[in-house]
Amino acid sequence: MLTVNAIAAPSATEPLVRTTIERRDLGPRDILIEIRYAGICHSDIHTVRGEWGEVAYPLTVGHEIVGSVTEVGSEVSRHAVGDRVGVGCMVNSCRECPNCRAGQEQYCENGNTGTYASVDRDGTTTQGGYSTHVVVDEDFVLRVPEAIPYEAAAPLLCAGITTYSPLAHWNAGPGKKVAVVGMGGLGHMAVKIAVAMGAEVTVLSQTLGKKDDGLAFGAENYHATRDAATFEALKNTFDLIINTVSAPIDMAAYLGLLRLDGTLVSVGAPPEPLAVPVFALFGNRRSFAGSGIGSIGETQEMLDFCAERGIAPEVELITADQVNEAYERVLKSDVRYRFVIDIDSLR
Amino acid sequence: MLTVNAIAAPSATEPLVRTTIERRDLGPRDILIEIRYAGICHSDIHTVRGEWGEVAYPLTVGHEIVGSVTEVGSEVSRHAVGDRVGVGCMVNSCRECPNCRAGQEQYCENGNTGTYASVDRDGTTTQGGYSTHVVVDEDFVLRVPEAIPYEAAAPLLCAGITTYSPLAHWNAGPGKKVAVVGMGGLGHMAVKIAVAMGAEVTVLSQTLGKKDDGLAFGAENYHATRDAATFEALKNTFDLIINTVSAPIDMAAYLGLLRLDGTLVSVGAPPEPLAVPVFALFGNRRSFAGSGIGSIGETQEMLDFCAERGIAPEVELITADQVNEAYERVLKSDVRYRFVIDIDSLR
Repeated sequence: MLTVNAIAAPSATEPLVRTTIERRDLGPRDILIEIRYAGICHSDIHTVRGEWGEVAYPLTVGHEIVGSVTEVGSEVSRHAVGDRVGVGCMVNSCRECPNCRAGQEQYCENGNTGTYASVDRDGTTTQGGYSTHVVVDEDFVLRVPEAIPYEAAAPLLCAGITTYSPLAHWNAGPGKKVAVVGMGGLGHMAVKIAVAMGAEVTVLSQTLGKKDDGLAFGAENYHATRDAATFEALKNTFDLIINTVSAPIDMAAYLGLLRLDGTLVSVGAPPEPLAVPVFALFGNRRSFAGSGIGSIGETQEMLDFCAERGIAPEVELITADQVNEAYERVLKSDVRYRFVIDIDSLR
Repeated sequence: MLTVNAIAAPSATEPLVRTTIERRDLGPRDILIEIRYAGICHSDIHTVRGEWGEVAYPLTVGHEIVGSVTEVGSEVSRHAVGDRVGVGCMVNSCRECPNCRAGQEQYCENGNTGTYASVDRDGTTTQGGYSTHVVVDEDFVLRVPEAIPYEAAAPLLCAGITTYSPLAHWNAGPGKKVAVVGMGGLGHMAVKIAVAMGAEVTVLSQTLGKKDDGLAFGAENYHATRDAATFEALKNTFDLIINTVSAPIDMAAYLGLLRLDGTLVSVGAPPEPLAVPVFALFGNRRSFAGSGIGSIGETQEMLDFCAERGIAPEVELITADQVNEAYERVLKSDVRYRFVIDIDSLR
């Protein structure tokens, strides 16, 4: 066992604190990663505060992890000491169900093993990336191309793949009109990736406050959703809407923006069910879909795509001591556009 | 103007009565049809009772119409006197919007002209098929193949195309597992058509009361939705679920039945929005979609498909005097599987 520095939540209601956690001894297919940067995802906050269900405390979260390989198990073949690597939202899956066999282990029918707050194969609770080291099965470790700076690579492991996957699956590309709802960590990545895929991108944000950024990221249009005229002007327009907002939205209004055979894909989830008027789906044969992260194969594809196209998230680097403050700012949408913890500050 | 016999609703609350209505003089592209049979659709009842919005009374409903051509306008080229023809849920559209130009006039962005209770181009309210004659633009008149008996052809014009279109669009066919929710007028057609397309079909009905029929129509499995074990046993199973029920359903339970990339398509619509838990869409990257009838081109394709495969709805023939009684029985789901009015009883 390896005892390593980490930041953990002692309970659902207390601030995160510095502590130490245990990492397992390397199994034959395990990799020891010295973590360099860890992104802060809104899911981290939902989880540590128990908003998505009960969790065991103390808990270390973080599923946007990058660093370098410092040790490998005896049978490891995919990665070598010194490699730049990343770990995203899952660290294992059953590998036997139809979805795992189809290379879609993010949809493992037995539940994939989350990077934190999941029950691991050895019965312990997985602990995330706000930590100096992590031990992960090599099959769930990604290569981080040299072209992507370490700190910028971190948010790609969740915000990047969560938006890349539905954009790729629903064929965002030349000739397609894509709307991105919300200009936060996920939204700003959705804009950059959809633009790189060749789609015509429109941002739908509460206000025009981030309009200059949106246009700089390549969006052609930017509309305020607080303005009811937006929904009238853009009726029957989009092939694809990526909804990154986890608060409830007016589904009739948003579905009305889809053209024939258009799909609204939610990647953010409010805890309460959304009220969907079925008549709004009849018009234009619309669909309302969900998408959860992406497979390991697709995550690697996304990293390579971002390296090749020079796409990276906008990050705000913080130290380990600023995490609680960062959480408060995430909740106020006061971040452009992703906090990343410099893990050197934790050593 | 032609004065013809019809059955009409005097108001939202009174029984339907025999009366006469006016049909317009034939325009150059119009066809006069002597109606032989008209199906009774649940939508007829919702509409005459004002449940889907206010309508003008007296109102004649009916959008499953078959008969023969008795007169044609000077420029008509698609149909000739004596032809066996049908009219479904729409009698016109704008012909200019992107959807009309794409041959998807059922999704006309300016609203297609419904066969009844719609404002026609001349400002009058369209009147439906519970009537001895109807005048319709030739572009919205279908050929009814000789192989389909007149009375059996009627329900194809709504129940048939409403289920055929999503089955075709979402690729029901060999290797695909399709569930049909509800074994009424639409449901029994969905079963027959999906079986003919080569899919493995499962019926999900409240009880096992119609199981023998379902299996006779070609379904391989039949489950009662009142039995909670059904939802456990069939988790992650279907590629496509066609929901023909217009009452609210437990969306989490039904979505849970979809396998990777599966879609639940509603063709029946409750007036109230459905509560959709977004987490249920995340799993397996599921979709919830709507589908409304089909295009004129696809309706013709469906009629030809049914003729070729020997598919026809199960009908219960009634006279004009039995319509009110039939409505009560439809509301109690006491029909196997579609009432069709013998319009000869109205002459």
